[in-house]
Amino acid sequence: MAGNTFGSVFRVTTWGESHGPAVGATIDGCPPGLALSPADIQAELERRRPGKGGPAASPRKEPDTVQILSGVFKGKTTGTPIALAVFNQDAMSKSYDKLKDIFRPGHGDITYLAKYGLRDHRGGGRASARETAGRVAAGAVAKQLLSLHGITIIAYTVALGEITTARRHLGEINDNPLCCPDNEAAARMISHLETVRQEGDTLGGIVEIVATGCPAGLGEPVFEKLDAALASALMSIGAVKGVEIGAGFAAAAMRGSENNDVILPAGFASNNAGGILAGISNGDTIVTRVAVKPIPSISKEQQTINLAHEPVTVSIGGRHDISAIPRIIPVCEAMVALTLADHLLRQKAIA
Amino acid sequence: MAGNTFGSVFRVTTWGESHGPAVGATIDGCPPGLALSPADIQAELERRRPGKGGPAASPRKEPDTVQILSGVFKGKTTGTPIALAVFNQDAMSKSYDKLKDIFRPGHGDITYLAKYGLRDHRGGGRASARETAGRVAAGAVAKQLLSLHGITIIAYTVALGEITTARRHLGEINDNPLCCPDNEAAARMISHLETVRQEGDTLGGIVEIVATGCPAGLGEPVFEKLDAALASALMSIGAVKGVEIGAGFAAAAMRGSENNDVILPAGFASNNAGGILAGISNGDTIVTRVAVKPIPSISKEQQTINLAHEPVTVSIGGRHDISAIPRIIPVCEAMVALTLADHLLRQKAIA
Amino acid sequence: MAGNTFGSVFRVTTWGESHGPAVGATIDGCPPGLALSPADIQAELERRRPGKGGPAASPRKEPDTVQILSGVFKGKTTGTPIALAVFNQDAMSKSYDKLKDIFRPGHGDITYLAKYGLRDHRGGGRASARETAGRVAAGAVAKQLLSLHGITIIAYTVALGEITTARRHLGEINDNPLCCPDNEAAARMISHLETVRQEGDTLGGIVEIVATGCPAGLGEPVFEKLDAALASALMSIGAVKGVEIGAGFAAAAMRGSENNDVILPAGFASNNAGGILAGISNGDTIVTRVAVKPIPSISKEQQTINLAHEPVTVSIGGRHDISAIPRIIPVCEAMVALTLADHLLRQKAIA
Amino acid sequence: MAGNTFGSVFRVTTWGESHGPAVGATIDGCPPGLALSPADIQAELERRRPGKGGPAASPRKEPDTVQILSGVFKGKTTGTPIALAVFNQDAMSKSYDKLKDIFRPGHGDITYLAKYGLRDHRGGGRASARETAGRVAAGAVAKQLLSLHGITIIAYTVALGEITTARRHLGEINDNPLCCPDNEAAARMISHLETVRQEGDTLGGIVEIVATGCPAGLGEPVFEKLDAALASALMSIGAVKGVEIGAGFAAAAMRGSENNDVILPAGFASNNAGGILAGISNGDTIVTRVAVKPIPSISKEQQTINLAHEPVTVSIGGRHDISAIPRIIPVCEAMVALTLADHLLRQKAIA
Repeated sequence: MAGNTFGSVFRVTTWGESHGPAVGATIDGCPPGLALSPADIQAELERRRPGKGGPAASPRKEPDTVQILSGVFKGKTTGTPIALAVFNQDAMSKSYDKLKDIFRPGHGDITYLAKYGLRDHRGGGRASARETAGRVAAGAVAKQLLSLHGITIIAYTVALGEITTARRHLGEINDNPLCCPDNEAAARMISHLETVRQEGDTLGGIVEIVATGCPAGLGEPVFEKLDAALASALMSIGAVKGVEIGAGFAAAAMRGSENNDVILPAGFASNNAGGILAGISNGDTIVTRVAVKPIPSISKEQQTINLAHEPVTVSIGGRHDISAIPRIIPVCEAMVALTLADHLLRQKAIA
Repeated sequence: MAGNTFGSVFRVTTWGESHGPAVGATIDGCPPGLALSPADIQAELERRRPGKGGPAASPRKEPDTVQILSGVFKGKTTGTPIALAVFNQDAMSKSYDKLKDIFRPGHGDITYLAKYGLRDHRGGGRASARETAGRVAAGAVAKQLLSLHGITIIAYTVALGEITTARRHLGEINDNPLCCPDNEAAARMISHLETVRQEGDTLGGIVEIVATGCPAGLGEPVFEKLDAALASALMSIGAVKGVEIGAGFAAAAMRGSENNDVILPAGFASNNAGGILAGISNGDTIVTRVAVKPIPSISKEQQTINLAHEPVTVSIGGRHDISAIPRIIPVCEAMVALTLADHLLRQKAIA
Repeated sequence: MAGNTFGSVFRVTTWGESHGPAVGATIDGCPPGLALSPADIQAELERRRPGKGGPAASPRKEPDTVQILSGVFKGKTTGTPIALAVFNQDAMSKSYDKLKDIFRPGHGDITYLAKYGLRDHRGGGRASARETAGRVAAGAVAKQLLSLHGITIIAYTVALGEITTARRHLGEINDNPLCCPDNEAAARMISHLETVRQEGDTLGGIVEIVATGCPAGLGEPVFEKLDAALASALMSIGAVKGVEIGAGFAAAAMRGSENNDVILPAGFASNNAGGILAGISNGDTIVTRVAVKPIPSISKEQQTINLAHEPVTVSIGGRHDISAIPRIIPVCEAMVALTLADHLLRQKAIA
Repeated sequence: MAGNTFGSVFRVTTWGESHGPAVGATIDGCPPGLALSPADIQAELERRRPGKGGPAASPRKEPDTVQILSGVFKGKTTGTPIALAVFNQDAMSKSYDKLKDIFRPGHGDITYLAKYGLRDHRGGGRASARETAGRVAAGAVAKQLLSLHGITIIAYTVALGEITTARRHLGEINDNPLCCPDNEAAARMISHLETVRQEGDTLGGIVEIVATGCPAGLGEPVFEKLDAALASALMSIGAVKGVEIGAGFAAAAMRGSENNDVILPAGFASNNAGGILAGISNGDTIVTRVAVKPIPSISKEQQTINLAHEPVTVSIGGRHDISAIPRIIPVCEAMVALTLADHLLRQKAIA
């Protein structure tokens, strides 16, 4: 109930602060007999680890080596809790000391203090993006499970700041460091990032996540519809400020006759629904997009207040990314994977 | 886990089908001593009941009289479950008989069958908007609780189809049947609805929901952030295909220096965050918007398939609204109220 | 979290006060396609309804007619919530008026006031045994589900006051009104009840509940072991003060070599484990017993205090049973049925 | 739902196998600002660690050093998850190799295989008593929280095999290695243990747990009564086969006039209720007892079967305790502490 657990059957609890001894996750409810090695998890962690953001990256270097502390025996899950830990190494708490009396604009400093009555000023504590290492580690296990059922999840950048992709050539995603399915747009994005970095500013963007191979029938009416679960999962990522499914906000301006996906004997003629009807997967590709806000840590000077509620100005140097994109991409995939893994098992209970 | 329960402390379970004997909700976890009468609930039900959509409305007439079956003694809640029931009266199941072998495009017919292996063809069963009567009834109780804490929730139409409001004059919301804070836009919307009705088509739109008076500190990191909870709550409404908080998707195109809300001794200088930072309320107004898809039941002829997977065409007459707006408005308010009531009580547990 | 919901997958929420308009239960998570009629439920309600306790019974007469308000279509469950209601009829609240300022010894009057800050003095409110009508109604649905899987649950009296059964001839259970598998002991119990009634006193006893046909593999380590779930389920019945599994408290005085159930190729040679090993069913008969306290409402005069904390004496007339036995028997069966139905479905999710 | 999580607000998830890399627990929902050091936890772990059972002990030696990996900053809890880990050291998996094809009588070998379809034969995996290290570590945190509210929990031995204590002189508990409040009985127990050890057999017993200082009002009707929660918590300990509250099974043979606790202006005149009325604490001392079965690992030869379902005999040498008493005592205290801490916070949410 304190909010660090995700899922009903495939349940994940993450723990750990940005500048504490370690971060990790415990998975309870993973079925037994699933092949799982540290390498399976490490591969996903590599995609989000500090320093991996290419042109958008922070210089913090963390090897992020995962340890499986329980739940796996002879290379297979046993059905008991899988405890995963990543010990922190390059946690330069000192660099945060000068910020310890200041509320950084756009950060959770002020709200964590309101909630808990105290403050872990070392890099945001649980509000740090470092917390997502636990999500990605757990998501890697979910992906193993989903792959057994033929479900694949892939996410990519469709906008960075005002630059949007003109096409979705998924084959180009791995061609550029921004995981953009449009190499031409990616080139402009990279150039734009550099400009913005020099201005001491940051950028947001939009990520699209698609899941293919998902069977029809997943999702629970009424409050735990598959789209509601995805919305919660994705909105729970720190930088996300909006989520849409299928046509999303564009559907608001359509007529029923445009938005309805005609059903043919061979399947749906279109996918405005984003693969979900009445909250239940319809067998088509699940499509969702998230709005990612620009990283609030900017070196440009900003007005704010300190603990005494006096006005001050702050310029945040530190080792920060220019954009949460592309490092947020494996996090988005992880959250969709955790959601689908959970609903896949939930459906088994009643089917 | 089967999805009909919402909330952790203030927990609501809804039940009932569109064409069954009754719909209702049970609230478990409402604090004792709260003043509550049937009239408090009835007032909210009136706002969403069939026939109340003005120019957008279906001609189905339901008095929607609520009964409080438990949990209230001498006009106050007792702390025990509050059972609410609304018996159905004008349920013309027969009109659905001709649709019983057809999958209506845009509806859950095909996914419910995939999930449950059987079909309640009478008006969509649980997937019907009639299910939201239980949400609104429970939401009315949540609103009573929130009002004790000075929290007010209001929702209104900011777009209907392609027509958007030019202003947010909240005083005008009750001046027009579409709950639009812009009487001039409302007039155009009404005219547009009539045109679309004659075409046998339907419209979507955008609803904005704001909550004022919410204290800082509500919301649980990491997975149950207040924005994640709101996203889930709102996306769980049948017609909703997108949710955004504060600046939402517009934040994706901003720079950090634009999007960050500067903090002054008197408070935040702007509210791009929508009242939520790092998933926790910051004391500012909570602002969220939902994309509402056009109602899929249209009288225009559409292609689809029947149970035998043969191609057929269908024109859905019935008694349907032209748009989920404005009847969805009290439902949106109810879901935000349920979310805030739950998190208000959750915070008490640790504070 | 407010305690009126039972189960994880097969989830039941009960509601209603002894002297309110109705009592009921909502089941969320019952699989679709299960045959279910009001008669299936009514049959179980008949076993516990007021006036059915034979020599131990209260004269309150309630027809206890159940209504299925949702979740069933054409005689089968649909997978959506099953709402069950029993409207109260013979609720003589007036007879409780003279008790409204007095804390009845052995009752929850004093603790409900401590918890909720107010008091529903009409017959105990939720603390009344009337609340168990909802359990029995929901348990009847669970039994339908279990019977499909070959699981049968039966409970019977093994002690009433100091009189214990000498044998377990299950064929004799329906021969006597106390559901005692020993007609000779039952005769002495009936005579004893009459004596105790004349003394204005009440009796406790012990009920044994057995479940046959339960497959091996149900129950979740570590905290939700099958025996832990049964202990919670049974201890949640108002009058129960102790629960034991298999040899139970007798095991404490055994040696390992006596208590261990030797495993033979044909199965276990004994059943001290009561069908559960390490919290997981082993395929043998599940055996559990509960200690039932004597009903606290006695006409003998007792010392107590009133709301002003002044000493008073009280003699409780009313319409009360002399013993919770035998009416508690279908309640015990219901709780075991709900527990097994839930764990049966839980196991499906991972198997 | 997979059973490794306990509690609703103060939530604990334990993980780890007897012979895996580590065991641990994650606490989500501990209020912020609670003083907590590794030493607070270590003190409790010392009471249950291998080798600490005195005359009943196994020779396995584990230092059981706890690490706090998150959730504590500057000696205080922060409100975020507290991750605790104890790395295993003296895990002689090899000694279990000869048992890997045999189902040990009284153990979970056969049921874990039935449930999960595979087997971690190294010392019982999660079914090992080693799992309780996580419970005790988390329980130590709960005790810190309870002590702030003046609640103290203490457990002691009231029976070992057939030897029962004649008195409850709590001052004597620390005088003898069996935590028995009767030094004279303890002496006979110690002598008896030696005899039984030489016979290659084991002993059970009864532990009583009392909580003083608990305020009235804790516990949730209907299904999550405080006694139901305690029953579940205690029955979830591997060796426990029975739980009773207050007079427990003895109440079954009492009359209402004997069992009712008369209420005087100064408080209850007796405590047959064990401090709980209608599932809610009444402010009196909470009293509960558990039946502990004899340890199933005996060196006496027993009949059993192997994986091929062939009859075999087995004598279990290993490093095993003769009785779960006294090492189970801190585990019992931990489970009661976790239960009360959870219900204390739950009550805050509605009060």
